[in-house]
Amino acid sequence: MTQTKAYGNTSATSPIEPMNIDRRDAGRGEISIQIDFCGICHSDIHTARSEWGPTSYPCVPGHEMVGHVIAAGKGVKKFKVGDIAGVGCFVDSCGKCKSCKSHEEQYCEKGAAFSYNSTEMDRKTPTFGGYSRLITIKAKYALKIKKKAPLERVAPLLCAGITTYSPLKRFSVKKGHKVGIVGLGGLGHVAVKIAAAMGAEVTVFSTSPSKENDAKRLGAKHFILTTKPEEVQKIAGKLDFILDTVSAKHDFTPYLASLKNHGSQILVGAAPDPSQVNAFALIFGHKRLAGSLIGGIKESQEMLDFCFKKKVFADVEVIPASKINEAYERTIKSQVKYRFVIDGKTF
Amino acid sequence: MTQTKAYGNTSATSPIEPMNIDRRDAGRGEISIQIDFCGICHSDIHTARSEWGPTSYPCVPGHEMVGHVIAAGKGVKKFKVGDIAGVGCFVDSCGKCKSCKSHEEQYCEKGAAFSYNSTEMDRKTPTFGGYSRLITIKAKYALKIKKKAPLERVAPLLCAGITTYSPLKRFSVKKGHKVGIVGLGGLGHVAVKIAAAMGAEVTVFSTSPSKENDAKRLGAKHFILTTKPEEVQKIAGKLDFILDTVSAKHDFTPYLASLKNHGSQILVGAAPDPSQVNAFALIFGHKRLAGSLIGGIKESQEMLDFCFKKKVFADVEVIPASKINEAYERTIKSQVKYRFVIDGKTF
Repeated sequence: MTQTKAYGNTSATSPIEPMNIDRRDAGRGEISIQIDFCGICHSDIHTARSEWGPTSYPCVPGHEMVGHVIAAGKGVKKFKVGDIAGVGCFVDSCGKCKSCKSHEEQYCEKGAAFSYNSTEMDRKTPTFGGYSRLITIKAKYALKIKKKAPLERVAPLLCAGITTYSPLKRFSVKKGHKVGIVGLGGLGHVAVKIAAAMGAEVTVFSTSPSKENDAKRLGAKHFILTTKPEEVQKIAGKLDFILDTVSAKHDFTPYLASLKNHGSQILVGAAPDPSQVNAFALIFGHKRLAGSLIGGIKESQEMLDFCFKKKVFADVEVIPASKINEAYERTIKSQVKYRFVIDGKTF
Repeated sequence: MTQTKAYGNTSATSPIEPMNIDRRDAGRGEISIQIDFCGICHSDIHTARSEWGPTSYPCVPGHEMVGHVIAAGKGVKKFKVGDIAGVGCFVDSCGKCKSCKSHEEQYCEKGAAFSYNSTEMDRKTPTFGGYSRLITIKAKYALKIKKKAPLERVAPLLCAGITTYSPLKRFSVKKGHKVGIVGLGGLGHVAVKIAAAMGAEVTVFSTSPSKENDAKRLGAKHFILTTKPEEVQKIAGKLDFILDTVSAKHDFTPYLASLKNHGSQILVGAAPDPSQVNAFALIFGHKRLAGSLIGGIKESQEMLDFCFKKKVFADVEVIPASKINEAYERTIKSQVKYRFVIDGKTF
C-alpha cells in the first residue's frame, strides 16, 4: 500500500478538501499510474453533492485521468514504465457476462467497478477517483495514449470523448447527416468536434446567445437559441440525430420535433429529476429517445485513436487542485470554456 | 353524392348522435363500401371530446371499418362489387414523398388524410369516419379481407391490429423473445395475441387483478400487477421488448427497468398530457423509448394475412349505434372485453 494525496469530500455539503488515501501496489496484470491531469466532469459535482442517489463518503471524484505508468506488475504487456495511460469511468468489471464479452463493460451485468463512489469487484473495497496523484488499475482497463498528445486536453476525452463518440459511432454518423447537439458545455463542445470530424452538418442548441461564435469555431454550421421557440420551429423535421448533453431537467419534446421520421435523440446527460416527454412527439414519425452510457474499453481506445488522427482535443482551463470548489461553481454556471482540468502536480 | 346515415357530435361536450352526411360517388380508382362493422377505439373518444388538440366539428369518428364493396369506379382492379374491404386510420396520402414511397403512408410528409377529423388531400374537404353506413375511398387505400373471416372481429384489426403488429414486426419478435405488453384493453389484448402468435413469451402488465385470467387465456405466460412495485421489481432486466398500449398518463421508468440492456419500450398509446421519464433509466443499459403510429397499407395487408393465418381476431362486443355513448363510458372504465364494435345495420 502507498499513501497518496487526494482531494475529496466527507458529506454532501462539505467542500472538496485535501485528504490522504491508500493505493495498492501493482499486482499481477496491474499498473500504477502517476496522474498528470484529471478533468472535472459535471457528474463529479452531482456525485460529490449526493444529487444522484446517496453517495458513500469520503468521496474522491474524478474519472478523466491521464498519467505516466510508474509501475507494472507481472504479466503486463500492454504498458511499460514511462508509457502514458488513461483511465475513464470504470476500473474493472466481471469480465464474464454477455456485456463484458461484447466489449460493453460499462453495462456489466454484475455492475462495473466505477472509478469513484463505487466498489472494486470484491464489492467491499471503495473506489476513489482521479482527484489524486496515484492510481492502481488492471492494465486491461487502462487506455493507451500517444506521448505526443497534449495530455491536459486528452484527459476529458476519457469521459466527455467516449460518452459522445459512442452514440455518434453507433449511429454511423457521416457526411450527409444532419446532427443536433443540445448544450455546449464539457460534453457538448467535444460532441460538436467529433460529429464535425465524422463529416456531419452540426447544429448546436443552446440557451446562451454568447455561445454562437464558439459553436461555429468548434465546427457547427448552425446555432439555435432554444429560448426562442420560433428558432427551434424552423428546424422541425430536419435532423437525422440529436445528441442531448444537458444534465439539467428539460422538456425533450421540442428536440424530438426537430428530428426527421425515424430519427433518434440520445441522452448522455442525466438530470437528477425526471423530465417530461409527450408520447405524441415519439409516435408521429416513429422517433426514438434513448440513453447511452460512456463506452467500453475497446471503443474508448478506438475513440482515442480517432481523436488523435482528427486532432480532436478538449478545450480546457488547467487549474490547481486548490481551486476545485471554485471550478465547481463556475461549471454549474457554465463559466468554463469548456472543461476544467486539474494539474496532477498540485494534489 | 349520396346522403348516408352517420353518428357523430357537434362539440366536445355533445353526445354522439345520429346525423346525415354526404359521400361522393366512386370515381376513377375508387370504391364505395357499405360498412358492416366499425370498431370503437379509445382515439375516437379522445378526438370526439377534443382531448388531443382542437377537433373540427361535426366529427364522425371511426377508423376500424369492414364492409362490402357496393360500387367500383373505372380502373379498379383490386376489388369488385361484393368483395369485403377494410378501411383503417387513413384514407389517402400524397403518394409521392419519401414516406409514401417507402410504404409508410401514415408518416406522409404532406400529412396523410386521416379517416376522420382531418381533410382529404385537397386540404379542404373534411373527412368523416366509419360511424356511418357508407364510405368512398381510393381502392389502393382499402384492405382486402377474406370472405370467410368473422367480420365483426376483423374490424378492430384495422387499427388495434396494425398498431401493435407493426412495432412487433419491426423488432422481428419471434420464439425466444420475452415481450411485455403494458395494458390489457383494446390494443393490449390484440397485442398479446399477435406477440404470442409470433412465438414470444408474453408478460402482461396491468393495474387490474381481474385481468390475470384473461391475459393467460389470450396467450400471456406471466401477469404482473403494476400496483405492486415488488411484482414489477421481480422482472427487472428480463424483457427484450415492451409494447406500451396505455393512453393514460403514466411513468415509463418502471417499465424501462424491466428491459434487458439495449431493450426498447414502444409507445402506441398516447396520453393527452406529457409523461415522465428518468434519463438514468435510459442511459444505464442503453435503452430506448420510441413511438410507433399504426402502419402503412402494405404492412396492414401483411398484418391481416398474418392474423387470418394465425386465427388472431379481436374479442368484441357488438352494439347498435344507439349505444355508442354508453360504450364510450364503459371503454373509459375498461369495462369491455375488449373492443366495442358497432353493427353497421343500425346506423
